[in-house]
Parts: sequence; C-alpha cells; structure tokens
Amino acid sequence: MMEKNISRAVISRLPRYYRCLEKLMYDHVDRVSSTELAEMMKVTASQIRQDLNTFGGFGQQGYGYNVQNLFAELTKILGLDREHNMVVIGAGNLARAFTNYIGFKRIGFYIKGLFDNNPEVIGQTFHDLTVKPMEELADFIKEENIEIGILAVPWEYLNEAASDMISAGIKNIWNFAPGGLDIEVPDDVIIQNENLSDSLIQLSFIVTAAGQGR
Amino acid sequence: MMEKNISRAVISRLPRYYRCLEKLMYDHVDRVSSTELAEMMKVTASQIRQDLNTFGGFGQQGYGYNVQNLFAELTKILGLDREHNMVVIGAGNLARAFTNYIGFKRIGFYIKGLFDNNPEVIGQTFHDLTVKPMEELADFIKEENIEIGILAVPWEYLNEAASDMISAGIKNIWNFAPGGLDIEVPDDVIIQNENLSDSLIQLSFIVTAAGQGR
Repeated sequence: MMEKNISRAVISRLPRYYRCLEKLMYDHVDRVSSTELAEMMKVTASQIRQDLNTFGGFGQQGYGYNVQNLFAELTKILGLDREHNMVVIGAGNLARAFTNYIGFKRIGFYIKGLFDNNPEVIGQTFHDLTVKPMEELADFIKEENIEIGILAVPWEYLNEAASDMISAGIKNIWNFAPGGLDIEVPDDVIIQNENLSDSLIQLSFIVTAAGQGR
Repeated sequence: MMEKNISRAVISRLPRYYRCLEKLMYDHVDRVSSTELAEMMKVTASQIRQDLNTFGGFGQQGYGYNVQNLFAELTKILGLDREHNMVVIGAGNLARAFTNYIGFKRIGFYIKGLFDNNPEVIGQTFHDLTVKPMEELADFIKEENIEIGILAVPWEYLNEAASDMISAGIKNIWNFAPGGLDIEVPDDVIIQNENLSDSLIQLSFIVTAAGQGR
C-alpha cells in the first residue's frame, strides 16, 4: 500500500505520467530512463525519480523503468484498471455535453444516469439517458454501482444538490458549480472542485503577461 | 514589468491568491501577514513570500501586506482590471452551458458570439446569442474586440477548427476538446488546454487511494 499523504503537486502530475507512458506503450518502447521520461514530462529527472519513489519506486539503476510494468502499476494506482460508473446531478447543458464526451469513456468512466428535480426536465432523453427524479437517486446508486456523482447544477442550487447527493449515498463528488469551496462535506465524502473560472484567470494572466490583451 | 518566466506551479496558485485576497477585502481586513495568508492558502509562509516576490514583492517587514494594495496589484497582473471578450467555436452543449455560466461574467469575461459551420445549428439562438457561420469570424473578432476563442468542438474537428480560428485572427485559444496537446500553433498563439479527463484521473486516484472505489 502506498503512502497516504501524496502532495497535490504530485497528484497534478499523475495524468501526464499516465499519458506519457500510454504513448510509450503505443510506440512499443520497452524501457525508459528517468532522463528520457523527464524530457517528455518537462520536469527534472530527479523529480521523476522522487515522484515514482512515492509509489514504491519501480526503476532499476542502470536500466531505467520497464514501460509495461510501470504503466501497469500506474494504471492500478490511478484506479484505471477497472470501470467506473457515474451519475450527473443537474440535467442542463453541461450534463448533456458530458454524456457525449468521449474523453471520459476512453479511460473507463461511464455516465449511467442523469438526475434533476425540475419536473420540466425529468423524462427528457439525452444520448439514450432519460432524466430521472432525485427521489430515485439512492436506489439507483446501489443498483448501478455508482461511484462518482458529477454536480452540474447552477450555483444557487449547489448546497441543496450536494446535500441531496450525500444523503443518497454518493461518496465522491466532482463539482462543476462555482462556489464549491464553501461546501462542507462529511469526512468520508471526497469533493473535487472543477473551477473553470480559475483556469480562465490563469489564461488571463498568461495572455496579459504576453501583452496579448486588447 | 514582471519577470517573464513564471513557473506553472506559481501560475496555478494565482487564482487562489486572488480568491483569498478578494475574501479579505470583502471582510474589510486591512493587512495580512505571510503566515496568515499561508494558512488561508494552505502553503508555507516562505512559499508565499517567494511567490509574491516573483511579482515585485509587495510586503514590508514587520507589517505584512496591505490587502488593498496587494489585491489591486494582483488584479492588474492577472488582467482582471479590465473586461475581456470571448467567442465560442462549436455551438454544442458545452457552448450553451458556457453562455449561461455565471463564473465567467463575475470576473469580467463575456461571451459575445457563438460560431459553427453546421448549417443546422447556424441561426439558432442561445441566451440572446445567435449562432453565426465561421466565415463571419474574422470580421467579428475585429469589430467586437475579441481576445479569447473558446474551442468547444468534438475532437474530430479539433485541428480544422483551431486552424480556422488562427486564420481568423484569434491569438488566445482556450481548448476544451480532448487531444489538444497534439495541436501545433504558431509562436504568437497561446493555447490553454482544459483536459477534463486529466481532472477525472486525479479524482480517480484520490478515490482509489482512499479505498472508496467499488
């Protein structure tokens, strides 16, 4: 079992490790040195060794890393060796976009249900999914083995929807509504806030620093 | 003028600085020490001093930071002291979600136009915006002072749409289509990839490490 306290910085690099190794696998590369991996990842070789040591250290001195082993280990650590079922709470435009987003399916994440409490939306169908009422959420989670609930309601319903999801038994929330940092969740509930405004602020900084604002 | 080579790690912390200072302003706090700011930001005090020094260092020893000054400086550095106009290329569900996303307007980013090359979508109206054909993009950018183009097409149109945007004069692309890392853009074009699958991989890791997978 791995160390529990992996830093946010390491976690943020994990998807890139995954993608680099996936590419090496695809290119039939057998082994890779920390220097080569560092170049692909755009970090230092010592950072690579340090990151991978956090998970048990898969390298051998003078050999580097066996790509297939490292990819298999990383896949397991990331939970990408199995399928994950999700539901979306709030069947608006964002939910509709997600039901059709190929990037999720590609890594084994499937949207199994859409839920809303608006009677005008309940019963509508998007990409083979019929919007169900919130009252059916608790049973659905059990029956369909739902692991992650995507929160995609307008911000004014954020707290109400989050609390309904938690009551229904959802333990892992991926939140797209602004204001998620203010939600208080029980200790056994994981919430990841996807703050699109934060990304936009970063882009704004880069654009401004480059003198490309108007 | 600030240093040009700000690291990605510093950039990723900027939105949180902005939000912390915004909260302090809202709470009428006059000054803040690096220790207090460190606690809000969940990083070390020395990290705070180092980050803010990158931008010219606004603190005074024994006093800390003047909240109003620091907020004003940060706002300017982030380009949030002015309004920004954006267009969305690809008038699907994601685009529709964005036209209604309050988080963007709150920080001064406005979606002024939706563009598509699908005749069935052109002419449709979402939240007061009528979808225009791609041929009108170049003129629109000039007339409406458009700074950022949001790329929200399905991945199979990614390259074509990106190249149309660049030809039309868009210098800053915020890309939501998967596969953005493979786009080659000219040196004077900034592209920020918003990879939702990467976020999902991070969440999957956290869920798996916590033993909350099913």
